[in-house]
Amino acid sequence: MTRLVSLDEVQGAASRLAGVTVRTPLVPFPRTNVLVKPESLQPTGAFKLRGAYAAISALSPAERQHGVVAHSSGNHGYAVAYAAGLLGVKAAIVVPRNAPPVKTDAIVACGAELVLVEPTLDARVQGAQRIVEERGYALIPPFDDARVIAGQGTIGLEIAEDVASANTVTNAVASANAPITPAAVLVPVSGGGLISGIAVAIRSLLPSAAVIGVEPELAADARDSLRRGTPVQWPAADVGRTAADALRVERVGDLTFAHIRELVADIVTVTEEQMLTAVRRLALEARLISEPGGAVAVAAALNGVGGVPQATPERPLIAILSGGNIAPDMLTGVLSGKSTSYTG
Amino acid sequence: MTRLVSLDEVQGAASRLAGVTVRTPLVPFPRTNVLVKPESLQPTGAFKLRGAYAAISALSPAERQHGVVAHSSGNHGYAVAYAAGLLGVKAAIVVPRNAPPVKTDAIVACGAELVLVEPTLDARVQGAQRIVEERGYALIPPFDDARVIAGQGTIGLEIAEDVASANTVTNAVASANAPITPAAVLVPVSGGGLISGIAVAIRSLLPSAAVIGVEPELAADARDSLRRGTPVQWPAADVGRTAADALRVERVGDLTFAHIRELVADIVTVTEEQMLTAVRRLALEARLISEPGGAVAVAAALNGVGGVPQATPERPLIAILSGGNIAPDMLTGVLSGKSTSYTG
Repeated sequence: MTRLVSLDEVQGAASRLAGVTVRTPLVPFPRTNVLVKPESLQPTGAFKLRGAYAAISALSPAERQHGVVAHSSGNHGYAVAYAAGLLGVKAAIVVPRNAPPVKTDAIVACGAELVLVEPTLDARVQGAQRIVEERGYALIPPFDDARVIAGQGTIGLEIAEDVASANTVTNAVASANAPITPAAVLVPVSGGGLISGIAVAIRSLLPSAAVIGVEPELAADARDSLRRGTPVQWPAADVGRTAADALRVERVGDLTFAHIRELVADIVTVTEEQMLTAVRRLALEARLISEPGGAVAVAAALNGVGGVPQATPERPLIAILSGGNIAPDMLTGVLSGKSTSYTG
Repeated sequence: MTRLVSLDEVQGAASRLAGVTVRTPLVPFPRTNVLVKPESLQPTGAFKLRGAYAAISALSPAERQHGVVAHSSGNHGYAVAYAAGLLGVKAAIVVPRNAPPVKTDAIVACGAELVLVEPTLDARVQGAQRIVEERGYALIPPFDDARVIAGQGTIGLEIAEDVASANTVTNAVASANAPITPAAVLVPVSGGGLISGIAVAIRSLLPSAAVIGVEPELAADARDSLRRGTPVQWPAADVGRTAADALRVERVGDLTFAHIRELVADIVTVTEEQMLTAVRRLALEARLISEPGGAVAVAAALNGVGGVPQATPERPLIAILSGGNIAPDMLTGVLSGKSTSYTG
């Protein structure tokens, strides 16, 4: 049986991330019983910095001297470029040609080398593998890696700490200083690294809260995988239909699937309209910028989609806002109410 | 001589605010040496909840039974309505007729009574005074009140705590885990309650950081007051020119002026264009929604306006983002680059 990441490994990652990633608060979504954890406020605009820095900082001095390589639909690449910069390590980032310019520009600004390939998982994997072989760079996988999963799991540690604290704000008027017992933690799912790490922490520290994954219904390969009991691959053309560019991964990893099967209660889906409406409502009501894929868990919480417990003042829902790297014209379109579906 | 608010009073307010206001983090503004404290993430979208709740929670049971009244250009009114709702106290909010609907709608949604008056400070003060006399409601002043100042000062406590913590993130690559010694804390100034409270905490706990106020140059009454050594009143028509509706107060208070004169190093100004560009950059680069007045301190930090120390990796600037209650059409206009001046 596959060995899952341990709580110790997550806590070890947390100690390395001090001073590197922002300790994001739980932000009550006004007039709801939903608490949002805005990973959009990380220096790279997404949670991916946690896993990337956790992985690179775990390399030996000899490995660091060669350099690191990553393949990514965008946010992971930026995170590896940024983390490598912090640690003084060379980085090459393999990115699909259709990644949004807002993401590739940021990678270049970190001083990393950009390697453009076709927009399929295979092309990205092969591009990175070539750099590993030719230059001896260490591969920093986007999700299917114990060090990366441990880094993402630090989000779960922070949630457990906040839930136990009298300082955390909910909309439960009567119980302002009572402990919170969230019904569920909702997590966007792409390759599964984020939900795997969070599930390790939450199942240990907050066992009364279900960990539930959320995908766009146009890229629901992880939901299908959980139902069939084995990782299912969706065609690239199918996952390419969603506006959630960060969630266009075709198949969860083997290690992440082992975590999902063992630790995750369910995976639910949201429509494109629910997702883009959540981007709009996050900005106008909760004053938070989200990219489409970053908003799927908030969308599931706000809409009470099937499989998600009802949010009450006593048992609120916690939703991870996983990233905020949205193209300016898409943001303007969504805010003005013009875009409730994707045509890009 | 006027008695200033003490650090003890600020700490007392902090203990009452646990579980009511969000413990906002310092968020590094990407590719700068500016750290933003996003009070836009408070449940009411602005810092005002701190002072309002601190004041109402300090009332006696007999006072609470009557009710509370507030006059406000918007955010304070919403904060009093919200805090009164949390504490089960009746509230009447006196608001200028030209306050943005996004703010008055929120007040009504809290179950408070809305009282509309002419858009001058005098009309607001008189409207509130009448309700005090006729109904025996307790007045919760927007800024010139020791309990309110103590509440706003809790922001300064949090800054001092974060600065001393190894967990706070800066863009100082080489010193990821070194202590931060900010050069200055930049604070938007309207009536002066926010800067007064923050200055009490920062001068005690972080004496190496200057506390600097920021105003729109179209509503620079506090800067003039500091220069002349006595509170100066600007005409309502003049302060009405700025897009920063939250900063259209005509004159600082007597108690707040005493704090400003004693504890504040300087008050600087920003142009309308600098302010609205900061709203745009906060959304697109730091993923935070701001209202125009909420962004003046960030604008001063990003532009290095005269009187503000240069931000360096070792000595960053901390800027308070004081509120995020912006009308959707103004936000869309600013994001699309159409609005860099105010015509409303």
